[in-house]
Amino acid sequence: MIDFEALFKVTYGLYIVSSGNKDKGNGFISNTVFQVTAEPPRFATCCNKDNYTAQFIRKTGAFAVSVLHSDTDSDIFQRFGYKSGENFNKLEGMKVKYGETGVPVVLNNAIAFLECKVTETFDVGTHLLFIGELNHSEMLDDSPEPMTYQHYRQVKKSFSPKNAPTYINPSKLGKKTGSTAFKKYRCTECGYIYDEEKEGKRFADLPSDWVCPVCGSPREDFEEI
Amino acid sequence: MIDFEALFKVTYGLYIVSSGNKDKGNGFISNTVFQVTAEPPRFATCCNKDNYTAQFIRKTGAFAVSVLHSDTDSDIFQRFGYKSGENFNKLEGMKVKYGETGVPVVLNNAIAFLECKVTETFDVGTHLLFIGELNHSEMLDDSPEPMTYQHYRQVKKSFSPKNAPTYINPSKLGKKTGSTAFKKYRCTECGYIYDEEKEGKRFADLPSDWVCPVCGSPREDFEEI
Repeated sequence: MIDFEALFKVTYGLYIVSSGNKDKGNGFISNTVFQVTAEPPRFATCCNKDNYTAQFIRKTGAFAVSVLHSDTDSDIFQRFGYKSGENFNKLEGMKVKYGETGVPVVLNNAIAFLECKVTETFDVGTHLLFIGELNHSEMLDDSPEPMTYQHYRQVKKSFSPKNAPTYINPSKLGKKTGSTAFKKYRCTECGYIYDEEKEGKRFADLPSDWVCPVCGSPREDFEEI
Repeated sequence: MIDFEALFKVTYGLYIVSSGNKDKGNGFISNTVFQVTAEPPRFATCCNKDNYTAQFIRKTGAFAVSVLHSDTDSDIFQRFGYKSGENFNKLEGMKVKYGETGVPVVLNNAIAFLECKVTETFDVGTHLLFIGELNHSEMLDDSPEPMTYQHYRQVKKSFSPKNAPTYINPSKLGKKTGSTAFKKYRCTECGYIYDEEKEGKRFADLPSDWVCPVCGSPREDFEEI
């Protein structure tokens, strides 16, 4: 028996993992960045095989990790978390530096970054596990706290996108039927919950071009919970 | 250039990873437990090759993960984090249940647990990365927050033990020479800092059988910082 609520008790940070070069690059929101050895310092990151950034990591043999702070703007999650870079340049307009390995490092909302050279790539099913040896690391801003996935869920009211290792189909979390006149609607893409009572506005009264404030999905992608 | 302070911005939870069977088992404190695929749910855990628990995971092909809460007793870290189970039975006196896979699950201070069957084992150098398919997961107590490695460092004033993936030799963090009459001493085993000013007692005045409150190391293992 699997209780999916138990999986939320596993702690993660939130990062932009990026790769590529000055000509072309991409990045995505990842919650799976972990140190796997101390000598030498090596990190693992987990990436969906369909993920556009995975192609760049394979090509360049390197990736960067930007550690996001806890007040990271929602548009960073929209841009890097819920959209593919195949159709637009995610790095355009961002504050980007090119690291020692040549990969782009996103500096917006980042408190530190790491750069790693890939030493192994392991196939774990739908995802690839890239193991990278730490080449460079730098503090950018010591004062803010790092963003955690828990904070993202609780404060931003959002969940992992569909290609994340930690994605959970919202239907598995169980529907709760409310007895009040107010209703709640969940974005089937990112899990954001629109609460009529809190917002002071009926979901049905929202303009037709209203989109999910987290992932930008249209109103039709919401379901009543 | 590597700034080791940047590595502390990567977020981890703290867990007891255990394996074995009713006859013999073991567990250790791990901060590297993370989900790597959603369909099916699979988890990775990273384990030093010298780690006694690694032998049990290899033998049984299964492991359990107990998610510790943020007020976890220091003796849990002493028992599971800084000592080897080769010389004593870590599970003795603990609240243990045997899961569906037959492995021991430590319930003390746990808010949830997972049980996984190993599907792959990857060699990443000094450590092994066990990939396990989730077999069972359960909530035990929904109210406390999970323990994070950051909380452990800040509140418990401790660091990773020597065989952890995130171990950092304290000398790499830089020595700070104090100008006050009070001094600070750091445990070279676990990183705990004894602050004379805060404790109101000179380090030299501590009894000879005094041990590190976190890992139980003798006084001789401390160095002035």
